[in-house]
Order: sequence, then C-alpha cells, then structure tokens
Amino acid sequence: MFEIAQTETSKRYIKVSGGYLMVLRQGDPLFPYLESLAKKENIKSATFSGYGPANVKFGFSDKSTQEMPAKEFKNIVLVNFNGSMAWDDGNPSMRAYGVAAAENGQIIGGQVLEAIVEGGSFEIRIELMDKKLNRIHDESLKAKIMEIR
Amino acid sequence: MFEIAQTETSKRYIKVSGGYLMVLRQGDPLFPYLESLAKKENIKSATFSGYGPANVKFGFSDKSTQEMPAKEFKNIVLVNFNGSMAWDDGNPSMRAYGVAAAENGQIIGGQVLEAIVEGGSFEIRIELMDKKLNRIHDESLKAKIMEIR
Amino acid sequence: MFEIAQTETSKRYIKVSGGYLMVLRQGDPLFPYLESLAKKENIKSATFSGYGPANVKFGFSDKSTQEMPAKEFKNIVLVNFNGSMAWDDGNPSMRAYGVAAAENGQIIGGQVLEAIVEGGSFEIRIELMDKKLNRIHDESLKAKIMEIR
Repeated sequence: MFEIAQTETSKRYIKVSGGYLMVLRQGDPLFPYLESLAKKENIKSATFSGYGPANVKFGFSDKSTQEMPAKEFKNIVLVNFNGSMAWDDGNPSMRAYGVAAAENGQIIGGQVLEAIVEGGSFEIRIELMDKKLNRIHDESLKAKIMEIR
Repeated sequence: MFEIAQTETSKRYIKVSGGYLMVLRQGDPLFPYLESLAKKENIKSATFSGYGPANVKFGFSDKSTQEMPAKEFKNIVLVNFNGSMAWDDGNPSMRAYGVAAAENGQIIGGQVLEAIVEGGSFEIRIELMDKKLNRIHDESLKAKIMEIR
Repeated sequence: MFEIAQTETSKRYIKVSGGYLMVLRQGDPLFPYLESLAKKENIKSATFSGYGPANVKFGFSDKSTQEMPAKEFKNIVLVNFNGSMAWDDGNPSMRAYGVAAAENGQIIGGQVLEAIVEGGSFEIRIELMDKKLNRIHDESLKAKIMEIR
C-alpha cells in the first residue's frame, strides 16, 4: 500500500550500540522502512520502540467475528510504539502496538497496522536479537506466534 | 494465586543478546513466568517490556486511603507493558506498569498486578542489568524502592 | 524552572549494562536529572524509558496555531515514559513522550515537557548509543530533528 519513494536518498537510519536508530521524516511510512532495514541489514530478529507524530491505522481485535476491524486516525502523536521484527516464509514480519494522543486529548491504542509520519520526525530504536526467529502459524492458538526453541 | 502448570513442557523463553525473549501463550500468567525466569537464570536485575492480549488486574493508587484498589479487565490488549525485576528478601520482586486497549476502544492503564495471556501470544523482552539490586522499604518515602549505591 | 537541590547527596543513578539505571525520589524533577547525567557522564546520545508516579506537564501540538499548549496533571502515574537524549548547541536536548493514568481512571498522554516525582520512586533506564548526535533545525520540516548521517 505504501511505498518508499524511489527518489528518496537521505539517510533514514544509522548503526548504534546493539542495533539501529531510525529517524523518519514527514510522509515516511513506518513499516516499509522497518521491512527495508530488516532486508538490507540481514536482521535475524529484533525488538523496536519509538514515538512521534503520525497518521495511524489501528486494528482492534473482535473475538466474536475473529476479525480485526481497523480505524484510521489523523494527526495523532504515537507516544509509544513498540514491537518486534521476525520472518515469515522469507519475508520480514512485523508485530507492533502503540498508544497515541489526539489533539483533542483523546487517547487511542491498539495494534498498529499502518503509520505514516505526519508533522515532524519519528524516532525508532531497533535492538537486535542474535537469533533468527520466525513467526509461524500455531493451530492450537489459531494465530501466528514467534517460534522459540 | 496463579501457578505454572506442572505439565507445561514447551519452551517459553530463549537467550538473546543482552537478555531473554519470552513468548507466552494462551492461559500463561505473566508474573509467575517472569519470577521463574529470575530464579532459574539467576538474574541479578533486569528491565522488561512487551505487549499482547491478556486479562489484566490493574492497581490504582488512592492517596486518601494509602491503598491500591484493583480492577480486572478481560480481553484487553496490553499495548505496552514495562517494568523491572529486582530482589526482595531473596524473592524476585517485580514492578510493572501497562496501558491497554479494550475491544470497545476504551484505554486503561496503571500498575499491573496480575495478567494472564488471553487470545494468542504475549512477547516480553527482558534486558539484563549487571548489578544485583534489591527493593527495600524506605521509611521517608513510605514505599519500597530499588536500592542503588 | 526546576533545579536539583544543592543539598542532595544521595545517589540517583548507577552504571548498568549498556547505560544507566536512574531511580528518582519524591520531589525530584526528571529532566534536570537526565540533563545532569548527560553532562556528567559525557553521554554521546541515548534513549530512555521508565515509569512511576509524578506531576506532569504535557504538551499537545496544535497545528492550527503551530503552538504547543500545555496542561498540568497532578498525582498521576506515568505508566510509560520514553524518549531520547541528544545535543543542541552544546546543551543536552531531551525529547520525551508519556502516557499516564489518573486516580479516577482517566488516561492522559502526550509530549512530556516537565515532570516531578510525586509519591514514591521513578525508575528510568538509559541506554547509550555510541554516536554523538545533535538535534538540528530542519527548515523543510519546520522542526528540530535528530541529525543522522
């Protein structure tokens, strides 16, 4: 859905102790940048956390339907965004949650499905883990789960 | 109150850079697993953070009574759960806070007193600290505090 | 605005794996202690996260006016406080966000402009980054941004 602009040349992350610091800018979509980092840097697995202003699509689980209805919020500030990076059938697999404040003071939270920086910069620290981890479907949980063994 | 089932044999955590990654499953109680990790792995002290679906008992401080009334919420998603592990008279001592989203969009937060995974998996990254730390009663604060010296 | 009391002699932080653990006490202002740490320990840059009871001044961005109106809340619990430390023209530059629970169950969040510990202790883990980073004004964003290159 969101793509990283082909013309984009300025740096979005640097190597720091234990992982990376990503600084995204106005209009940057979070997940494509995180996925791109995972692939370019051959990340085995990682956790991440950050904050900043964004337009966000949150997912809210609905047990009655087993679906995840989504809701979009514009011009909110993700005051905490955290999650993990693993792999799913060779592709980066992100799981992320967040809590955000709207301009009117309303607080919103849930699983973060999409997010685009809106109004300044968004900082994310990525902390590497030294194990290659996959998210696999678990039949008993009826959900994808990080495989540890 | 909550116990780890004796029959449970599948792995719940692995060693990763700087600490551990814990992946809990449907029905797993968070604190007993964290306490068990602290004891089994002889953890000196640590901080941790994670997220996932859970039934949670939150504590809310009430200054007028110096008590902490608790409230339970079912089928919520802890979008951020963070805290620290130390020791109190030889036993693991956890202090943890969280913020959660309910299915109806309501946001809840406070000290996390109990939590059980409900509806999938819960990921927690534990980051070790290389100092043995105790929580001790501080008379002037009338509270337990992490002792640093 | 807030100052660290000259008479204060007890320790507020210790060195731990990858950075520092700060334990603040009743009446301690968060940012002066973080800034003091940055200067005394010659920190290049860092991220931090923590929690605890506090009086907090939150900022809420208002795009229509390009201003950040602030609101103070007393006796709330910051259930997550996270941010980064960099430098701005030789001075420590902090950017921090938080989400808090009030005694009546209300949840509040936003950029944290000021905070003073109120009612016990506040724990903050500071995780160092091995790059000296500056926050510089970016004309196209009309905002200060962490400079990475």
